[in-house]
Amino acid sequence: MDKFFNPKAIAIIGASRDHHKVGFVILKNLRDAGYKGKIFPINPKAKVVLNERCYPSILEVKESIDLAVIAVPAAIALNALEECGKKKIKQVVMITAGFGEIGNHKAEEQLKKICAKYKIRLIGPNCLGLLNNHAGVDTLFLPASRLVRPKDGKISFITQSGATGSTVLDLMAKENYGFAKFVSYGNATDINEADLIEYLGNDPLTEVICIYAESIKEGKRFLRVAHQVVKKKPVIILKGGTTSAGAKAALSHTASLAGSFEVFKGAMKQAGVIVAETLEDLFNYAKILEKSFAPKGKKVQIITNGGGFGILAADYLYKMNLIMEEPTQETIKKLKKQFPSTYIVKNPIDLTGSAHAEDYEKALDACLKDKNSDMILLIILYQTPELDTNIVDIVIHANKLKKKPMAVISMGGDFTQKYKNILEKHQIPCFTYPNNAAAALKVLAEYYLKV
Amino acid sequence: MDKFFNPKAIAIIGASRDHHKVGFVILKNLRDAGYKGKIFPINPKAKVVLNERCYPSILEVKESIDLAVIAVPAAIALNALEECGKKKIKQVVMITAGFGEIGNHKAEEQLKKICAKYKIRLIGPNCLGLLNNHAGVDTLFLPASRLVRPKDGKISFITQSGATGSTVLDLMAKENYGFAKFVSYGNATDINEADLIEYLGNDPLTEVICIYAESIKEGKRFLRVAHQVVKKKPVIILKGGTTSAGAKAALSHTASLAGSFEVFKGAMKQAGVIVAETLEDLFNYAKILEKSFAPKGKKVQIITNGGGFGILAADYLYKMNLIMEEPTQETIKKLKKQFPSTYIVKNPIDLTGSAHAEDYEKALDACLKDKNSDMILLIILYQTPELDTNIVDIVIHANKLKKKPMAVISMGGDFTQKYKNILEKHQIPCFTYPNNAAAALKVLAEYYLKV
Repeated sequence: MDKFFNPKAIAIIGASRDHHKVGFVILKNLRDAGYKGKIFPINPKAKVVLNERCYPSILEVKESIDLAVIAVPAAIALNALEECGKKKIKQVVMITAGFGEIGNHKAEEQLKKICAKYKIRLIGPNCLGLLNNHAGVDTLFLPASRLVRPKDGKISFITQSGATGSTVLDLMAKENYGFAKFVSYGNATDINEADLIEYLGNDPLTEVICIYAESIKEGKRFLRVAHQVVKKKPVIILKGGTTSAGAKAALSHTASLAGSFEVFKGAMKQAGVIVAETLEDLFNYAKILEKSFAPKGKKVQIITNGGGFGILAADYLYKMNLIMEEPTQETIKKLKKQFPSTYIVKNPIDLTGSAHAEDYEKALDACLKDKNSDMILLIILYQTPELDTNIVDIVIHANKLKKKPMAVISMGGDFTQKYKNILEKHQIPCFTYPNNAAAALKVLAEYYLKV
Repeated sequence: MDKFFNPKAIAIIGASRDHHKVGFVILKNLRDAGYKGKIFPINPKAKVVLNERCYPSILEVKESIDLAVIAVPAAIALNALEECGKKKIKQVVMITAGFGEIGNHKAEEQLKKICAKYKIRLIGPNCLGLLNNHAGVDTLFLPASRLVRPKDGKISFITQSGATGSTVLDLMAKENYGFAKFVSYGNATDINEADLIEYLGNDPLTEVICIYAESIKEGKRFLRVAHQVVKKKPVIILKGGTTSAGAKAALSHTASLAGSFEVFKGAMKQAGVIVAETLEDLFNYAKILEKSFAPKGKKVQIITNGGGFGILAADYLYKMNLIMEEPTQETIKKLKKQFPSTYIVKNPIDLTGSAHAEDYEKALDACLKDKNSDMILLIILYQTPELDTNIVDIVIHANKLKKKPMAVISMGGDFTQKYKNILEKHQIPCFTYPNNAAAALKVLAEYYLKV
């Protein structure tokens, strides 16, 4: 499997001179991504593409090739795969659509046969292929002007739907999520979810695995593999087609037969896989699991400069079955001495609209030591005039101590966004809405308290 | 009440020369907001503030004053209010905190007595006051550098919590929501939720009313008034303190006694008030109700260029009890003739990653005429290379026909955000996540199909 992600030479079958064609975009992206290996464009109608020598057939290439990307029409894709077999290429990504997903099951069966005959491992067809940020391998046929590539990081994402996957990638890149590997595997004719999480489970660069799937090809094997993987790193899954309406749509999309969601959810939970109910959940869970660490328990202390936000956060923490104890009497006494009488030292600790950055420092210092909490939910509303912006340094410092996982809620316009970005670059998970922060803390606690 | 929002002269009691003081920020914001009336700064220690003549006492001002804003410490706020009474000012906003919310019920009672004695209507205490965008009235003590003021528009928002309100305002401003009026009413010692929705119900510039409250002062009157108001315009409420944990926090915040949320929700729904469970819901509901119009029924047609997104949207529409019928045979036949065989013409209509803008045009044209749908949910993933950006002109044109309400889902980075902003400026509600779009369409349908 590793040759998919770290190939020494890649062939692009269907490399094109037309800027709108998939075969052009893939070649361009691969070069722009800084891939250091050799690239062999294949196209019988061209001699040069993007200043690279172009070969009429893969069989004309003398050098050995680790990975072939097939981006030719369905009618000639089978032949291209056969040629890859003859050339002894063992890793193939087939971008081409027009197989099982449109009812062409015969062609899909032929794909399988060719793979078996030549011992080819195949990703696809009907997919975007893969992105290995760390090695500059990028077979996505989406231009970088429209889909910004994420920075290097610890999240790996595998997706049945190319469109869903690529938009997630795009939004995560914008929001500073770091990525290790991305695989859009389409029809999963050969390589499927179980293969991919098994590989990523052993990949030292991957620390969080996210999955979007409409069905799981080898259900039992997937659960068995997942159960092992989650002991090492969290696995989050979002399923499409969880209702009859969605399942009907899924049947048209990748010919997936979606089963009962309740059964699915139960099985996943038993295997230790985290089930996201929405794309937004997937984002929030991935964020906190990438950035944070193991809490000792489920007790959360809220520190806020907005009373209403503290109340909303308390509501959602309660709904998430997290626990809010008051700080110890010792902590309360100590803080009350340091604060004006208008501040409320309970849970939440409400520093009110008059809060200064130093008040957060005092509250954080006390709460990180307090035995009545395991996690800290900080609400920082940057709109108040007396809150100095060195608040971010205080939070970054407190987080570096790694005493208790922290999450920050901030809501607002550009001023707020600026400081949110700084905190996130320092590995502090930030959320806009209190309910999302509460749900993320719940997932963090549940994952680590179980394993 | 109207003199609160359109006063001819405003006094700022506690106007300060210190840039960090509330009294300074209010005066500055009022001038920056372009308020055309007269401003009288009051401060016995200053002769000039921000180049305006400053009076030692409100009683020294000869001209008549419609609105006084009190921003002095609690210890002298009662006296300031008494002086407003003597000066025959009938509208007062009291920013000052330190009353019932910190257990000082005696001072709160005295406020009431002074108001009764002089027939003063009071907003506050413990609040931010108000913002009337259209008239340049702005008593918010949050600097514009940290809290961007929204553009003129149709949403009015009343909030018990100043912090919650101001952050909502800030984020909504960033996201191009238009505002009519904003009121942070704090302890609601005199003017409360019922007064405010009654006024906004009759305000021609307000078309959507949003409320954040931890408790409702005059519950029965509020429900009676709301029941009348919702016949003219939608009212959305988010309640803080819906759980025991949140209610405990609310008790410390504004001394509100929060009751059972289920009872609250039932009563609100009966009155026709839309209950938002999260801030995010509040945003999404306000967005669609501000921008859209009445659908004829609950049937939704999805048009997508991403199969996975179509499936997720179908799942959430189903969960929201909205209906997805297939287009009529006539529509299906017509579109199949115009589209390649890889496109799926059902519900969702899946134009696949190969979609061109013109394909959306054809699908939209057919679906707007089709009798099997009442609303259109458009999924536009801008990441695909063949989708020309004139897609936005096509959507804007289709929306202008006002045949069926439309909502758009797009997810991604800056490229996506750019086109989302253009659509929203043309009154097309756009969403990032499929579940949020589905929830918003549900609220739109329920509001209009009931009234």
